[in-house]
Amino acid sequence: MNPIFERVLHSFNQQTFMQTLGAQLTGAEEGRVTIELPFSEALCQQQGFLHAGVVATLADNVCGYAALTKTPDGADVVTAEFKINFVRPAIGERLVATGFVETMGKRLCVCRGEVIAISQGQSKVVALVQATVAVV
Amino acid sequence: MNPIFERVLHSFNQQTFMQTLGAQLTGAEEGRVTIELPFSEALCQQQGFLHAGVVATLADNVCGYAALTKTPDGADVVTAEFKINFVRPAIGERLVATGFVETMGKRLCVCRGEVIAISQGQSKVVALVQATVAVV
Amino acid sequence: MNPIFERVLHSFNQQTFMQTLGAQLTGAEEGRVTIELPFSEALCQQQGFLHAGVVATLADNVCGYAALTKTPDGADVVTAEFKINFVRPAIGERLVATGFVETMGKRLCVCRGEVIAISQGQSKVVALVQATVAVV
Amino acid sequence: MNPIFERVLHSFNQQTFMQTLGAQLTGAEEGRVTIELPFSEALCQQQGFLHAGVVATLADNVCGYAALTKTPDGADVVTAEFKINFVRPAIGERLVATGFVETMGKRLCVCRGEVIAISQGQSKVVALVQATVAVV
Repeated sequence: MNPIFERVLHSFNQQTFMQTLGAQLTGAEEGRVTIELPFSEALCQQQGFLHAGVVATLADNVCGYAALTKTPDGADVVTAEFKINFVRPAIGERLVATGFVETMGKRLCVCRGEVIAISQGQSKVVALVQATVAVV
Repeated sequence: MNPIFERVLHSFNQQTFMQTLGAQLTGAEEGRVTIELPFSEALCQQQGFLHAGVVATLADNVCGYAALTKTPDGADVVTAEFKINFVRPAIGERLVATGFVETMGKRLCVCRGEVIAISQGQSKVVALVQATVAVV
Repeated sequence: MNPIFERVLHSFNQQTFMQTLGAQLTGAEEGRVTIELPFSEALCQQQGFLHAGVVATLADNVCGYAALTKTPDGADVVTAEFKINFVRPAIGERLVATGFVETMGKRLCVCRGEVIAISQGQSKVVALVQATVAVV
Repeated sequence: MNPIFERVLHSFNQQTFMQTLGAQLTGAEEGRVTIELPFSEALCQQQGFLHAGVVATLADNVCGYAALTKTPDGADVVTAEFKINFVRPAIGERLVATGFVETMGKRLCVCRGEVIAISQGQSKVVALVQATVAVV
């Protein structure tokens, strides 16, 4: 296991909410992190799509962890803020969220990401995020 | 039960994710909606605070439902996008999220909201949201 | 002149862009700042409304200066990011932008604001902003 | 002149604010638009950098026009909202803003963009934007 993945996984495994959602960390390299989530009927909004809050949670997490990969060991990160556009209903077998670092400052890191829904072998972007992550 | 609360509750009860989180609709009048969530160890991030995604989910939902209260019967709403600032750790016995309509256009409604954490009788703002909700 | 207004005005007068726009600082107290701008044909978009960039400039400035009023003398501020919704065309005799501090942290200050257009004695909200201002 | 560039230029030339700023449309193809701005002492903030409002204006405009290139003739666009991160001071000989369409819906188009400062032959990202543009 590469040390970056290991570092992110250590934090990810402490997030009880990720287990509640059934999310899995599937990729972590310098400046880029991927989390996947299988569809679950327990995570829906009123029309049976995955809830915007679930999509936003994944978007937030991949941005935060992408930032973490650019910090020295021992540092931690918190999301100062994010903005997310929902561009299609989140339907399908699973979601794949990817976040990447755009710029890294001393105290603030700006990340972007996207959440893709995979349905019958087709991928569609369902959300786009831009986040400010603070290094603490 | 007032008809606005009833209308929002009908949709809220169809959101399985709200049950998964343990959230409750506690207020709905024209242009303003409140949702509460008791702390749960199943909803945390790596430091034991409620996850930013949980906070964002509540913020999204109160904005969407605040917009819904301003639409004619039969209309539904979807969040086009939101932006949220996290200003303090989400710790305490429970969260109270409130959303209100700022401006209502023909197709787009702009809402603001806040999420407050209540801890030992004290209230502190943990997040501030501004959202664009589309009427469909 | 109150010392807060004086402090903000000192910075405002150094912003050449404010003079180019014809904007005026009209209020500054702790946590709240107001800037006004008379309509000018030199500041329009393709339909003859004041340009969204003009509206955004005012929104940014009132948030930044509202944050400045909460910092110790000698500190300066920079906008880390902002999000703005444009809810009506910016038409009328003048714009009035107001920004206020929502929460003040050690390094980041979250502000909100609005821009109002005044036309024939009527006021209408044309934009709503939420900003993160860094103290430097 | 390609018809997309011509269409965007027609609108751009009607924006008096672009002339006030001294901005030039330098590229327009389907889904992507570029605007450049030479440094001017009339467009600065208190430290002599180009004002965040100038940067935001360019960011808004390239996103709006990128969306316009994806609409049928006769359609127009308005920015519903945007979010912008300022990641470095806007200093240098000129700014180059680029916007591109991420997703195009029936009524809303989500764009991203960046503003780069060019100084002594070096390019640095100074701002990152994510915008929602409404087709009207």
